[in-house]
Amino acid sequence: MREQLVREVDIIPIEIVVRNVAAGSISKSFGIEEGTPLPRSIVEYYYKSDELGDPMVIEEHVTAFGWATPQELDEMLSMSLRINDFLSGLFLALGIKLVDFKLEFGRLYEGEELRIVLADEISPDNCRLWDIKTNEKLDKDRFRRDLDRVEEAYQEVARRLGILPEGGPRDLQGPDTMQ
Amino acid sequence: MREQLVREVDIIPIEIVVRNVAAGSISKSFGIEEGTPLPRSIVEYYYKSDELGDPMVIEEHVTAFGWATPQELDEMLSMSLRINDFLSGLFLALGIKLVDFKLEFGRLYEGEELRIVLADEISPDNCRLWDIKTNEKLDKDRFRRDLDRVEEAYQEVARRLGILPEGGPRDLQGPDTMQ
Repeated sequence: MREQLVREVDIIPIEIVVRNVAAGSISKSFGIEEGTPLPRSIVEYYYKSDELGDPMVIEEHVTAFGWATPQELDEMLSMSLRINDFLSGLFLALGIKLVDFKLEFGRLYEGEELRIVLADEISPDNCRLWDIKTNEKLDKDRFRRDLDRVEEAYQEVARRLGILPEGGPRDLQGPDTMQ
Repeated sequence: MREQLVREVDIIPIEIVVRNVAAGSISKSFGIEEGTPLPRSIVEYYYKSDELGDPMVIEEHVTAFGWATPQELDEMLSMSLRINDFLSGLFLALGIKLVDFKLEFGRLYEGEELRIVLADEISPDNCRLWDIKTNEKLDKDRFRRDLDRVEEAYQEVARRLGILPEGGPRDLQGPDTMQ
């Protein structure tokens, strides 16, 4: 029997975006040129709703409408800042600038105890990652903005992280089919 | 010499919106039916910029970009909540529901001392005021939404406030021309 690595959580309907450098919506909203370092890391909340287009929200909305409690938000915020510090250091060591990223959290019930845990993936799909020297985009913006070499950019991140197989890229196979 | 009633302030580029009942952008953003009482009063910040369309912002943006200091924001927030309590009571006594309103603040330099003061007007142009029994709109939404009797609604608010001259509406004249 395989160890249970994937656990079901009750997803909190708030996306947390941590920004270190202006890009995307913050550049557009406030007319700040992409690539401008922010005076300090900025944390934003968005309400997860495809129907409403994931609107940006403030703590007041989140707690007034009961999407998360003030305690949950505090916990999510402090975990997000720690994750930002950790990932910024990690990517810096690989010559990559962590511009911004999105996190989601879930409620995990362990018997009587409720824990807030990081949910969803962290990948170039929800991080902006730029080469530190050239500012070349190594993330989903290559796809969003119709740039070429989307696959190569993702592989470059995987290569620097040391998680690209030696034999080069291949389709990932699950353990069941690998026997 | 007339007393100096109007004083020049350095306007803080943040509009504060206090909401007691869902209407306008909060109804649209979150799909909440207009007229729904909010679980509690909600305070929102908007960055004053015609060019950018007055985007909603969070405290993080305000302080990171230096539009106001955390101390100034705290002061503006606590004044806004007191103004909300005061105006809610005042309008309730007149049979009017204070749905939401917008405030602006300015910096006033008195010698060495800096004070944060309420700036701009408070009027049916920047408050949503509904008749408490009929929910009839007595504010700028009559104009925005092409409802008729805009002028009558404003006069109705003035009449209930006891500031409509006994002789009925007329153009207001300044003291200089009244001699």
